[in-house]
Amino acid sequence: MTTHSPGLWRRALAEALGTCLLVAIVVGSGIAAQQLSPNDVGLQLLQNSTATVLGLTVLILIFGPVSGAHFNPVVSLVDWILGRRAGNGLSLKELGTYVVSQTAGAIGGSVLANAMFEVSTSISSKDRATPGHLLGEIVATAGLILLIFSLAATKRGSLAAPAVGAYIGAAYWFTSSTSFANPAVTAGRIFSDTFAGIAPGSAPGFILMQLIGAGVGLGLLLVLFPSSARTADEVAVPHTVDKPVS
Amino acid sequence: MTTHSPGLWRRALAEALGTCLLVAIVVGSGIAAQQLSPNDVGLQLLQNSTATVLGLTVLILIFGPVSGAHFNPVVSLVDWILGRRAGNGLSLKELGTYVVSQTAGAIGGSVLANAMFEVSTSISSKDRATPGHLLGEIVATAGLILLIFSLAATKRGSLAAPAVGAYIGAAYWFTSSTSFANPAVTAGRIFSDTFAGIAPGSAPGFILMQLIGAGVGLGLLLVLFPSSARTADEVAVPHTVDKPVS
Amino acid sequence: MTTHSPGLWRRALAEALGTCLLVAIVVGSGIAAQQLSPNDVGLQLLQNSTATVLGLTVLILIFGPVSGAHFNPVVSLVDWILGRRAGNGLSLKELGTYVVSQTAGAIGGSVLANAMFEVSTSISSKDRATPGHLLGEIVATAGLILLIFSLAATKRGSLAAPAVGAYIGAAYWFTSSTSFANPAVTAGRIFSDTFAGIAPGSAPGFILMQLIGAGVGLGLLLVLFPSSARTADEVAVPHTVDKPVS
Amino acid sequence: MTTHSPGLWRRALAEALGTCLLVAIVVGSGIAAQQLSPNDVGLQLLQNSTATVLGLTVLILIFGPVSGAHFNPVVSLVDWILGRRAGNGLSLKELGTYVVSQTAGAIGGSVLANAMFEVSTSISSKDRATPGHLLGEIVATAGLILLIFSLAATKRGSLAAPAVGAYIGAAYWFTSSTSFANPAVTAGRIFSDTFAGIAPGSAPGFILMQLIGAGVGLGLLLVLFPSSARTADEVAVPHTVDKPVS
Repeated sequence: MTTHSPGLWRRALAEALGTCLLVAIVVGSGIAAQQLSPNDVGLQLLQNSTATVLGLTVLILIFGPVSGAHFNPVVSLVDWILGRRAGNGLSLKELGTYVVSQTAGAIGGSVLANAMFEVSTSISSKDRATPGHLLGEIVATAGLILLIFSLAATKRGSLAAPAVGAYIGAAYWFTSSTSFANPAVTAGRIFSDTFAGIAPGSAPGFILMQLIGAGVGLGLLLVLFPSSARTADEVAVPHTVDKPVS
Repeated sequence: MTTHSPGLWRRALAEALGTCLLVAIVVGSGIAAQQLSPNDVGLQLLQNSTATVLGLTVLILIFGPVSGAHFNPVVSLVDWILGRRAGNGLSLKELGTYVVSQTAGAIGGSVLANAMFEVSTSISSKDRATPGHLLGEIVATAGLILLIFSLAATKRGSLAAPAVGAYIGAAYWFTSSTSFANPAVTAGRIFSDTFAGIAPGSAPGFILMQLIGAGVGLGLLLVLFPSSARTADEVAVPHTVDKPVS
Repeated sequence: MTTHSPGLWRRALAEALGTCLLVAIVVGSGIAAQQLSPNDVGLQLLQNSTATVLGLTVLILIFGPVSGAHFNPVVSLVDWILGRRAGNGLSLKELGTYVVSQTAGAIGGSVLANAMFEVSTSISSKDRATPGHLLGEIVATAGLILLIFSLAATKRGSLAAPAVGAYIGAAYWFTSSTSFANPAVTAGRIFSDTFAGIAPGSAPGFILMQLIGAGVGLGLLLVLFPSSARTADEVAVPHTVDKPVS
Repeated sequence: MTTHSPGLWRRALAEALGTCLLVAIVVGSGIAAQQLSPNDVGLQLLQNSTATVLGLTVLILIFGPVSGAHFNPVVSLVDWILGRRAGNGLSLKELGTYVVSQTAGAIGGSVLANAMFEVSTSISSKDRATPGHLLGEIVATAGLILLIFSLAATKRGSLAAPAVGAYIGAAYWFTSSTSFANPAVTAGRIFSDTFAGIAPGSAPGFILMQLIGAGVGLGLLLVLFPSSARTADEVAVPHTVDKPVS
């Protein structure tokens, strides 16, 4: 806990800014798509998902060396769990800081996107919590956790940026829920009454399923990559680089 | 055969889970596309193929270190044939285990996709076995085999994930059959009466053509990369890593 | 200033030609999209942005080893600022040469695209300077600067080509302005009265916001990557390779 | 000439097969697009260009180690010219073999695509030789030559596969001609009376412009990368690997 403290404010800033821009990309491109292709929802989703694939990849490249580019409370949570097993990884204080930063950033991202498109920020009325969508969130989050930490377990963390971007791009389509897979982003998207929004009543169910999905993903990880349970150095998404070049 | 036995169950799980998710991606994104862009079949296929390019690439990244990420009986078959020539590669028992795992996973993938989209699982009524489509399956499978094993023969196996994803993305379009190129996936897609399904009556013809295509691909491989015939270490898709980090 | 002088004309040519082709890609694909998909502006933008992602990536690959492939006065400006802090980077004379080359090239790019599509070169009448779009330009430019120089600060400059291409592809969609983020390209696009043009009256506001955005991006860079302030060798986009192979 | 002779038949096979598949991708995906999205030509071109980006990248990966994956007479011609300057590169006999193989393969590619889609092979009636399109072919071919040989000149040949795929994907859109940029592919596409065809009367003009464009590209290469003129080892696309693994 103490070893990372010096730069924690900088890492928190990176998580907040990165999650802000991630939600701005999701919501902003959703608004653009809805305005520009009003007659075909599938075409809107293709524009929305393509922008997210590209933008998320770039955000991980930018912020990865500072904070690990989690942008997602369940990723930070799994990082903390795996780190505890080996006496390494995020501390509880860091986990809390990350989650708060991500959530605040996500809400700011909706506000920013709304401002750029001159849409007033209001609460979404888009109900999403159907049984199929809830199952979709479990699948989407399990796959995301398995992807991120299997890359870490096999020392291929440098592939995380394009791989996570590509995964979310596929999950937009193959999960019925369009793959939120992220409690902070779910919270942020409440504040956009657009194509990309989610009604407050649907958010708790989505977040619960994301937590369950994270558990499923973690379980699969430990079965498929048993060594990932033994040493957090191999598992954790990098988050110890406060001053990457100095 | 004995050297790989300890982890065979884990590799079988990886093949089953990977093929399950592959079919879930193909079928799930197909259902989404059909629902969201009902008026343009080409746009549906663009959404379907884009999701598959991204998702298949990611699945190979995740499961490659565990099982080689074959997800395809004809890939496993060619791996076994090339391995036999050099006294290496998959054993017959492993080949059987892989094929059963892939087929079971593929059927599960249709069931999973149907569940996420709240579509009942029923048998497809989509006939596909026209002469042109059958020729398309030969071409699609020959190209896939040539790609995978030429990368292995030239020690560029680390490019397999994006390359195989890209290949399937192109083959969706240039082969008239939309490139099934995979007997397990063909079997799995029987269980989805949607855009992405295939009627049971069309499956045997498709699978036979895939076997012929694999033979064509193997023949081209041995002509173009003659050294691939001599040493299976250079040829085989990696499948010996049971504990990738330990 | 003197060390780079021998090849400055060659680097100026690279900047002019690269920016020319960049604008030709943006404007040319915009004209094609407008002609081929007249009924859906979102589909036009998808075609336009997809062509730009691919083309910009390629242009950076080609011209990067010669001039650093800035193609953008604010990138050159930030390179000069960061270089001054460390007594390194572009000299003032080089900065001026780059900006003039980029601007001339950008105008030539519109003329070239218009000629290929047999459209007469005339001044755009497309007003774009709304408050939302101006905010969009700040965000777009800040992100671009942060991306380019964070990659340089962490010695990942070889990722710049696909990363900058991907960034612009996302920014087409998530910023309301479709992300000009470049004063030279903004000037060039005045000379195309098409989908991709910008009216002269909107250009000064866009360019001012781009300068503000560059300042925001630079500020974020110095906060998140403090070491980037100390040594220009780590920060500067490569621009010292006059004869890359000799 | 003699050093490469042993494997020339294998390299010729690689060029023929690769160019055949390239044309099958272009023509086949063009037919599919035309059938599936009959109401929007821009959407057809997006499907066609996306399939080509992915497929061309894969073909270069497969055949590059065998023949250099030229698939294009003007690429082979420039390779020969640059090789002559340094007493290296393709011999005249090899150049002739490559061009014949590429052209025969390209025609076979149209026949194969037509067969897969059960379309009869007939001569295209699609006139394309407008002044704008002819200028487009000069630009498209100049850019292609500059890209390929600048990567070689800077020892980044391993990037050629995705870079050339991306370039053609952009050039489909920003050149008014949709970027044939290849005399063999131009000849092959005569034999497809579809979306992707070209009338015989338009082919000579296109091919002449491609030769001029190759000259422009070569000139720019020698100006921007002067060292490329001195040693063909740095310049030539790899074509000396007959038995890549032995």
